[in-house]
Amino acid sequence: MNRSREAIIEAVRGQMPEKRWAHTLGVMQTSIELAVRFGGDPTRAELAAILHDVAKYWSTDRMERIIREEQLPAILLEHDKQLWHAPVGAFVAEQEFGIMDVEVLDAIRYHTSGRVQMTLMDKIVCLADYIEPGRDFPGVNNIRQLANHSLEEGLIAGFDSTIELLLSRRKRIFPLTIDARNDLIQQLGG
Amino acid sequence: MNRSREAIIEAVRGQMPEKRWAHTLGVMQTSIELAVRFGGDPTRAELAAILHDVAKYWSTDRMERIIREEQLPAILLEHDKQLWHAPVGAFVAEQEFGIMDVEVLDAIRYHTSGRVQMTLMDKIVCLADYIEPGRDFPGVNNIRQLANHSLEEGLIAGFDSTIELLLSRRKRIFPLTIDARNDLIQQLGG
Repeated sequence: MNRSREAIIEAVRGQMPEKRWAHTLGVMQTSIELAVRFGGDPTRAELAAILHDVAKYWSTDRMERIIREEQLPAILLEHDKQLWHAPVGAFVAEQEFGIMDVEVLDAIRYHTSGRVQMTLMDKIVCLADYIEPGRDFPGVNNIRQLANHSLEEGLIAGFDSTIELLLSRRKRIFPLTIDARNDLIQQLGG
Repeated sequence: MNRSREAIIEAVRGQMPEKRWAHTLGVMQTSIELAVRFGGDPTRAELAAILHDVAKYWSTDRMERIIREEQLPAILLEHDKQLWHAPVGAFVAEQEFGIMDVEVLDAIRYHTSGRVQMTLMDKIVCLADYIEPGRDFPGVNNIRQLANHSLEEGLIAGFDSTIELLLSRRKRIFPLTIDARNDLIQQLGG
């Protein structure tokens, strides 16, 4: 990478309120733990975690402009804006932070939605985002327990909680999340 | 059509146990009611209802052979066998019963999964399948109440109940059902 870990941390920290930075620190720590537990690369997983929410507090207009100009998947514009910061973040990580590691970029890109055939790095960062110590939502402790022995079981429970929330709020469900959950269940033989 | 309503009824009735035939009678009656309520064609909606479960009790092998030989969507084979009887039923309705009415055939084809841009006939038969008087599952009375004033609201609640069931059983979710639900929410301005 072009910048040191510390320089990236300082630059990302400046893009978000203190509370969100505390969340990012949690995702960094949990990504390292999950990488150690499941045979991933802690250094690269932490890098993806540092950058995963870099665009979270960018304005809708700024994200929409990048999605359109950089030809990110147009389906994003039809779905909840909460999904936009992940692919926009991957773009920013590459363009502004010079990250060339495709697995790190993909882990940022798919940390909210998941995807079919998630890599080990995708799984680590996505699951860490669900269970970092600052998270508190119905079912989070169940997901934490599953994450002690299986990335896939933890992620399925995480996606279930997302889908339940969207059902209860009568919101649309991003198809990639269904594809990701279906694929994980199939990987586990279901 | 090539056969009279009565001849079709007798032929379909012979393909299923008496209990399932009672369900079909319920879907017929409810489809007529919904068609009258929401400006559909009661006669054609009833015809789709008569035939909707024609292949429900066919063997897996027989359904799989038709899906492969007639090049029905291959994704079906990756998903629950409970989904197969709907597209196979549409094939049977056309080939064995001589039904040429595309809207009737589609209402049979998509009665279990739903689809994007459901027709009025699709909506009537799919919703009738959820709420016919013999149905008894958690939330069915809520769906019945919604169906008093909106096909779309009733169907969203119906799909929600299906998705909840699949989540609780840790089963995969057919993507078309998510697409159908997303599309209905969008139609209602959500």
